[in-house]
Amino acid sequence: MAYQLLQGKKGIIFGALDERSIAWQVALRCHEEGAQLVLTNAPVALRMGEIKRLSEICQAPVIPADVTNMEDLENLFKQAMDHFQGGVDFILHSVGMSLNVRKNIPYTEANYDYMHKGFDISAISLHRVLQTAYRLDAINEWGSVVALTYIAAQRVFPDYNDMADAKALLESIARSFGYHYGIKKKVRINTVSQSPTRTTAGSGVKGFDGFIEYAEKMSPLGNATARQCADYCVTLFSDLTRMVTMQNLYHDGGFSFTGVSHAIMEMLMKQALQEQK
Amino acid sequence: MAYQLLQGKKGIIFGALDERSIAWQVALRCHEEGAQLVLTNAPVALRMGEIKRLSEICQAPVIPADVTNMEDLENLFKQAMDHFQGGVDFILHSVGMSLNVRKNIPYTEANYDYMHKGFDISAISLHRVLQTAYRLDAINEWGSVVALTYIAAQRVFPDYNDMADAKALLESIARSFGYHYGIKKKVRINTVSQSPTRTTAGSGVKGFDGFIEYAEKMSPLGNATARQCADYCVTLFSDLTRMVTMQNLYHDGGFSFTGVSHAIMEMLMKQALQEQK
Amino acid sequence: MAYQLLQGKKGIIFGALDERSIAWQVALRCHEEGAQLVLTNAPVALRMGEIKRLSEICQAPVIPADVTNMEDLENLFKQAMDHFQGGVDFILHSVGMSLNVRKNIPYTEANYDYMHKGFDISAISLHRVLQTAYRLDAINEWGSVVALTYIAAQRVFPDYNDMADAKALLESIARSFGYHYGIKKKVRINTVSQSPTRTTAGSGVKGFDGFIEYAEKMSPLGNATARQCADYCVTLFSDLTRMVTMQNLYHDGGFSFTGVSHAIMEMLMKQALQEQK
Amino acid sequence: MAYQLLQGKKGIIFGALDERSIAWQVALRCHEEGAQLVLTNAPVALRMGEIKRLSEICQAPVIPADVTNMEDLENLFKQAMDHFQGGVDFILHSVGMSLNVRKNIPYTEANYDYMHKGFDISAISLHRVLQTAYRLDAINEWGSVVALTYIAAQRVFPDYNDMADAKALLESIARSFGYHYGIKKKVRINTVSQSPTRTTAGSGVKGFDGFIEYAEKMSPLGNATARQCADYCVTLFSDLTRMVTMQNLYHDGGFSFTGVSHAIMEMLMKQALQEQK
Repeated sequence: MAYQLLQGKKGIIFGALDERSIAWQVALRCHEEGAQLVLTNAPVALRMGEIKRLSEICQAPVIPADVTNMEDLENLFKQAMDHFQGGVDFILHSVGMSLNVRKNIPYTEANYDYMHKGFDISAISLHRVLQTAYRLDAINEWGSVVALTYIAAQRVFPDYNDMADAKALLESIARSFGYHYGIKKKVRINTVSQSPTRTTAGSGVKGFDGFIEYAEKMSPLGNATARQCADYCVTLFSDLTRMVTMQNLYHDGGFSFTGVSHAIMEMLMKQALQEQK
Repeated sequence: MAYQLLQGKKGIIFGALDERSIAWQVALRCHEEGAQLVLTNAPVALRMGEIKRLSEICQAPVIPADVTNMEDLENLFKQAMDHFQGGVDFILHSVGMSLNVRKNIPYTEANYDYMHKGFDISAISLHRVLQTAYRLDAINEWGSVVALTYIAAQRVFPDYNDMADAKALLESIARSFGYHYGIKKKVRINTVSQSPTRTTAGSGVKGFDGFIEYAEKMSPLGNATARQCADYCVTLFSDLTRMVTMQNLYHDGGFSFTGVSHAIMEMLMKQALQEQK
Repeated sequence: MAYQLLQGKKGIIFGALDERSIAWQVALRCHEEGAQLVLTNAPVALRMGEIKRLSEICQAPVIPADVTNMEDLENLFKQAMDHFQGGVDFILHSVGMSLNVRKNIPYTEANYDYMHKGFDISAISLHRVLQTAYRLDAINEWGSVVALTYIAAQRVFPDYNDMADAKALLESIARSFGYHYGIKKKVRINTVSQSPTRTTAGSGVKGFDGFIEYAEKMSPLGNATARQCADYCVTLFSDLTRMVTMQNLYHDGGFSFTGVSHAIMEMLMKQALQEQK
Repeated sequence: MAYQLLQGKKGIIFGALDERSIAWQVALRCHEEGAQLVLTNAPVALRMGEIKRLSEICQAPVIPADVTNMEDLENLFKQAMDHFQGGVDFILHSVGMSLNVRKNIPYTEANYDYMHKGFDISAISLHRVLQTAYRLDAINEWGSVVALTYIAAQRVFPDYNDMADAKALLESIARSFGYHYGIKKKVRINTVSQSPTRTTAGSGVKGFDGFIEYAEKMSPLGNATARQCADYCVTLFSDLTRMVTMQNLYHDGGFSFTGVSHAIMEMLMKQALQEQK
């Protein structure tokens, strides 16, 4: 299905690595809906990933940028504006990394250099992107910015480690900047809190597969896929959602408001019986 | 703009009274997006309103139903299914009334018969609608139900009176039924928490005009209009938001997450200076 | 331990049935902390329960009152004020009942007379109590009202049925009336959202024992007991919490902000392995 | 009033500068309630402030510590444990500073070195304190940690600048560490979200006086004072609140759940009339 919902719109997509990336799917769907795109990622991610293929499908240039580097970001926006011959209508921020997670350091033994680095990449980067855009006046009126987040910002999922704190920070920055950019130029900024998704980046988290099954059984509609997340982002970039801003929007099949499901209770009851034997 | 987002979909719209109704605008937009509609309202509202005009524009039959009457609701769904020759894909619930508000009874002197009546019309009615649909299997798989609500369900706006409690109840019912209908048939149920809107129904609330201006000045993007709310509902009825369920979604220009705006602080400072003179 | 935290204070306790009732434990703890009490419950509950024993321990009169009957409530407050020779300093509302739950009617097949009755007893009763007190000016300045609630008001626990909606309504009423009573007389009104607790009233809910174990394993500190809830209520009735109002306060060992615990994930993993065999 | 609520308990108080500090008032109240204390602050703050006076009143040693320095924190806990001849029962974290605020840099022009520094002092410092205590096993079973925060973590108060993001991060860290410390040793960790308070530190924020009046008029009970905040902290350090953990607790006279008050609406209406003239 395609509706030309983004006909004439221009967007920058941060964070597409490979086909399993949510950002990859968002790029595809935006392209299908008529948008013109610029793709970006960290130089190292560009080397590892397969973004060239995405670039060809979407006819979108790839502009490398380290999201913690203000010069890179300035260059990105300037090049994107050149390419589009004008401002940007939407931005997807799908960037996150925790060195403490990668190195299997428990939350209670966190390395603080890693923590600062993780927060910079995963959260402050959104501020850097927005501040750069704000200064260059790079986002058109009624533009839309979406950053991907996770419910660990609200509730503890212990293996998510300091990424939870990074996401809480990210959501706060979206809200804070959303106020200022809304007043200045009607730009809206939201976060989408997505079901756990089997991406290449996510697969490093300990016990992730078991956790995905848990979320699947807990959510009345099951887990949302990357493709479905892309559909949802399309609506948020479209002109049909202009008055939605400063929100954290759960896209998770109902997980966020399910206290416990029958499916989970049944598994636990069976296991409890098992253990009594 | 129209994208055929609802091409082939069938929906029931509760609560269109006249052009200023949000439900009216939702009906128009759904029609523009390719949906087939059935319109419904209470018999008394049908007499007062101008629904005939809407019915003609949308080529949609009008089926009267008192939302607190189970026979009426059963009849409505049966007739709608006959008309559509099949199930329903989406429902808008835009129904609310407080007798305590109408009769200017302060919250602290509430009449409990009125309170029960108000809760039945404004909140339990959603349960009645869903239970009827559930029993008749009237909603198609991946169907979408939206009920309109207001942020008074979360925070006190004193003049909103017992309508605030009705909205809290409505949101809880949406969540509870959303779990069950999600598991049974992938039907999603959400509430949209809209900016204060100058509808014919809303105009009875004391000090409403002043309040609308307050919300306008508090919201970074200003108040959302009925038409914009209709745009947003279209996205929620579309197939692009299938995994969003059991949510309360603010459509309010950022009001809900603004603690105070510069515009409001400035007015207050001026008034404080005025009073010191 | 006892600190004379409520020395000189007078309170009314709604809902003590037997030793397992949270209200019973609250009464005991308030008595230990130096408060004078009046106990009340529905006439039918008084016949079934053992309140006479509590009445003797606490040297507190028992005044029957049906919480859905305004004359009973007026009589209760008048007699209490006579007994105390003055106003009331605190009130515990621990009242809840769902006929749909009692009769094992699924949420999707709710009987609406039962639903109205349940909401009246479980939620609107708080409004009735407060409105009566407000009219009679029965609560002293800086008085404190606590109503017991459950997290099903925020997230779906399917077996909790329409009691979830009743609790959402209760919390909204606490908030709404909290505004008005705060302004009028500095009276604060809060809800305490307690861990699932094995009371005589609660034991009717389907699968309740399994659910209690789930909550125990999900909560970093385990489930809070009735006695611990009573300790917490004592702090909320004391002069040390005067500026806390209109809040819903979780007293649940951390359940409310735990997305999933290691203990639950381990059980699920074991069961998943079991099922694969 | 004093109840010996903290008889026999030992606590560390971070952040007392002078009499207007909330931490100062908390120290006084804890002392009155029978606790033994250790006071700490940054070396530079110790030079500027009047902590010697507090130290004498409370008979509490002052141990300097930079909260961003792990050696300082280790030294602090070791000295405190020596002084107490055992573990700590409670900790108050009342530490916050934003260089971007101090230097009047708008949120949309943030300096990122300042931002990192601010987050380290205001939020990550709580992680550093807890990690040090966890490693040294410095907190006794059922110990209680409170960090002071502000509602800007949930909603935008534009002048609060990046301190809002710091507070969101702080609250997330409290939640995350609360899970782990709860499981390990029944230690509970909460944040208290206090009314705006005229402290020496707070007085730097632009337009702060006007804002305090706004909050005063918006809160049904008015703003909570530092002394009242200290009372509330005492209850959270006591054994009466053992099952409260991972919560953000508003101590604000009802501000957090008031959408708008009559007092504010009246001022706005007057000003609107004024402007029309």
